[in-house]
Formats: sequence, structure tokens, C-alpha cells
Amino acid sequence: MNSEKEIYSDQIEGRNSVLELLETDKDINKIFIEKGNRHGSINKIIAKAKERKIIVNEIEKEKFKKIAQTNNPQGVIAIVPPFDYCTVYDIINLAKQRNEDPFIIILDGIEDPHNLGSIIRTAETAGVHGIIIPKRRSALVNSTVNKVSVGAVEYMKIARVNNINETINMLKKEDIWICGTDMETNKYYYNQDLTGPLAIIIGSEGNGISRLVKENCDFLVKIPMKGKISSLNASVSAGIVIYEAVKQRIKK
Amino acid sequence: MNSEKEIYSDQIEGRNSVLELLETDKDINKIFIEKGNRHGSINKIIAKAKERKIIVNEIEKEKFKKIAQTNNPQGVIAIVPPFDYCTVYDIINLAKQRNEDPFIIILDGIEDPHNLGSIIRTAETAGVHGIIIPKRRSALVNSTVNKVSVGAVEYMKIARVNNINETINMLKKEDIWICGTDMETNKYYYNQDLTGPLAIIIGSEGNGISRLVKENCDFLVKIPMKGKISSLNASVSAGIVIYEAVKQRIKK
Repeated sequence: MNSEKEIYSDQIEGRNSVLELLETDKDINKIFIEKGNRHGSINKIIAKAKERKIIVNEIEKEKFKKIAQTNNPQGVIAIVPPFDYCTVYDIINLAKQRNEDPFIIILDGIEDPHNLGSIIRTAETAGVHGIIIPKRRSALVNSTVNKVSVGAVEYMKIARVNNINETINMLKKEDIWICGTDMETNKYYYNQDLTGPLAIIIGSEGNGISRLVKENCDFLVKIPMKGKISSLNASVSAGIVIYEAVKQRIKK
Repeated sequence: MNSEKEIYSDQIEGRNSVLELLETDKDINKIFIEKGNRHGSINKIIAKAKERKIIVNEIEKEKFKKIAQTNNPQGVIAIVPPFDYCTVYDIINLAKQRNEDPFIIILDGIEDPHNLGSIIRTAETAGVHGIIIPKRRSALVNSTVNKVSVGAVEYMKIARVNNINETINMLKKEDIWICGTDMETNKYYYNQDLTGPLAIIIGSEGNGISRLVKENCDFLVKIPMKGKISSLNASVSAGIVIYEAVKQRIKK
């Protein structure tokens, strides 16, 4: 992110995207319109916004550019409320409510919003109770992530924590087993019991799981690599390990 | 693709990308430079190209725009030879050479280059012998796909065929079992024997496997969906089913 940029919690850019958003009943904080760009569907957007009593600010080109996050915002940006993160206890409580063993995913530094969105989608279809992400070195849940997840973020509990290791220690006290995915082990994921209360950690795209987090895992598992390429895309490896756990839980 | 565009087999755009390409020993057919844009690293590109005896064409802004496929080509486009597709027999022969049961992936209309690249990466790490894609309604193997695959395309046999169903019939004559992934079955992928000579078909992002292809499968398998979202990303579901087959083949 450019440091000169004004940072809003989350924003949706482009005429069609903002028009689509206005058709839903989702909250919109305000809409920015670029000065001198008031033609075409922009007028429709302004009318719709007035109908819904949403503030519309017409701003100078220079200021507009500073706010825009995409290359082609087409003169319109809608500011929306940030994603509503939960606590780790909310996730554990959901498992209790469902009378299921906790099934949690921890993402140790997934920085690509496409990977984050795809993993949230997989976790939702797999019946995972919640996802834990760190506050630093991680993609945030925003409108891109929502889009890639095909809306799964709206059904998924996601907690942001200051320190992954402190969270792991807390989960251990709740009798949840911590499974890391890493190449530094002899254990293939399908030879590991993944039933019972479980948190699976997926490492970052470039560096995998960080050293301290790895040392804090109860066990590590790896995926067999039979070719010349030595790693899978993070969202694909997450899918493979998550669904092994799903299968074992169904078959138990 | 815009119909007004001049279509080249494959091209790499942007100063850094073309400079990086010039540092490798990969073939480059020619380089287009936008007129009036001859400053900065463009001169370095021209010098490097001369050194390697690659033709450099300086062309008018309008023509340059027609050739460009990305939003910001920065005044430079390198044209590279198209990906070297193989035949379906090359794939079967590779399995024979390795003395392994054929393990083939058929992509019935994957249109997103990111999904195609990610599936090629997964197939390579899984020891798949080759991938079959249709000539129509499918992403091509180009430099974007190569990038997403982290170079796996260079180690993977990929065949382009006119008609998926004719190819399936040919594979059946070679005693290869055809497995489709689809929700219209009661069989979970992990309850199906995926050892032996096998081709797994992955459907398109929007519509899954087409009806005729589905009817031509020996069996269908599905992935359990336990949430509100009813499907996985195509490259994630490919990864889950491909690695179930890998596991069964290792454990056999």
C-alpha cells in the first residue's frame, strides 16, 4: 500500500460494482465521486445513494486518486464498514454449540487476498468453525477477499490476533491439537490422525510457517511432492489437508 | 479477447518482465517498442536485444495499443514462441516409459489462466503424466499461466484436443478409466478406487463438466460440501481429488 494513500477500512470501486452494491441492503458509509466525472451511470449512482440517504462527496481529482486502490475506479468509490472479526472464543463456542470437536484453521501470514478468499471458501464448504489470522503480515478481509470467497466470508467466523503463538497456547489449554503443514517432517498428512479437536496451520506463500510457530505445533504433516516443483499453491495445499481432516471426521 | 487486437501466440509485456526475459536463454521472436517512449530502461532493452540479435520494431502508439494485452505494457512487448503442446499419445508413452499406470488430468473448459496455472503446478507436484485441454472454451498456456504455475508448465506434457469426448473414447481403448468430478453422484471421491490407469476430469469454473462428457465418464465422484457455499474453486477441488489419487497410489 502506498504510504501517501488515505486508508479506508474497505472500499468498493468502479461504476458497476458500486451500482451492484447499492442494489443490496449492505451498509455503505459514504460514496466519493471524482469532480468533472459526473456523467453516464454516475448520475444513477448519485440518485440511488440519495434514495438510500447515503452521503455523496464530490472531491478533487488529486484527492480521489489518493483514495483509489484500483487502477480504474471510473470516478466512483464506495466506503463500506470493515469486516466484523470475532474472537477466538467465539470460534470455540460455535463448535460447542454445534456439539462438534473444534475444527480451526490458522493462517500464518497469507498475504495474497486471492489465497485468503479461496481458503475461506474451502473452510466454509468443509464445515470449519473459524479461521484465525494475525494482525501483521496478513491479507485483511476486504471486498476482494469477499468476492474471491464467493461470499463465504459472510458465513465464516474469522478472528484477528496479535500473536499466533499466544493463541496456540490458549488453544492448547482448550485441549485442541495443533497441526502444522511443513516439509520438515517425515509424516504424510494422510498418515496422521486428524480427528478430534484440531487447529491446522497453513504457512505463508513464500516462507511457510514461521520457526517459532512451527516449534509450537504438536505435530507437523507434509504433502508428498513427486515432481520438480517443490511446493503447492497455499490455497491448494490448505484444501488438500483440510479435506483429509473432513474425510477422517466423516469416516470416524 | 478484443476482436480488433492483433493476436500473437504469446507475449510478455512491461520493462522489468522483458528485461528478465532477455537475461534468460529463452527464444524471443521479436520486440515491439512504442514510438516516443524511448527512455529509461527501454534503451537497455534495445541494447540487450541487439546483443542477442533479436529484431526490435519501433511502432506507432495506435498499433502498439492494439497489440498490448495488459493495461500497462510500459512501451515494450516481447513476442515469444507459443507453448509446445504434445499429443495424447506422448502422455501415454511417458507413463509407459516410467513404467507407471497412466495418470492424466482432463480440463473440460477451465477458462481462468490462474486456475489453469495452479492446476498445472498441482499436477506436476503430484506426478501426473499429462494434462489434456480442449482447443475451444479453454485458457491457453501462455506466460501468465507459466508464471502462476511457478514454471511447472516447462515440466508438464499438455495436449490440446478438438473434442474431449473423442479423446475420452481413445483413452478408454487404452484401458484408462475415466473419472468425472461432479455433484450429481452419491459417491465421495475418497470412497472410489483411484489406482490403476486413470484420467480425472475437472469441469469449468461456472458450469462444471459438460453433459456429454459427464455421460461418457466411467464413474463420477464428488467432494462433501458441509457449508452454505455449494462449490470449491476449480484448482482447489482439482488438488483434493488429484492428491486422493496420489495417496491411494502410494499406499497401494
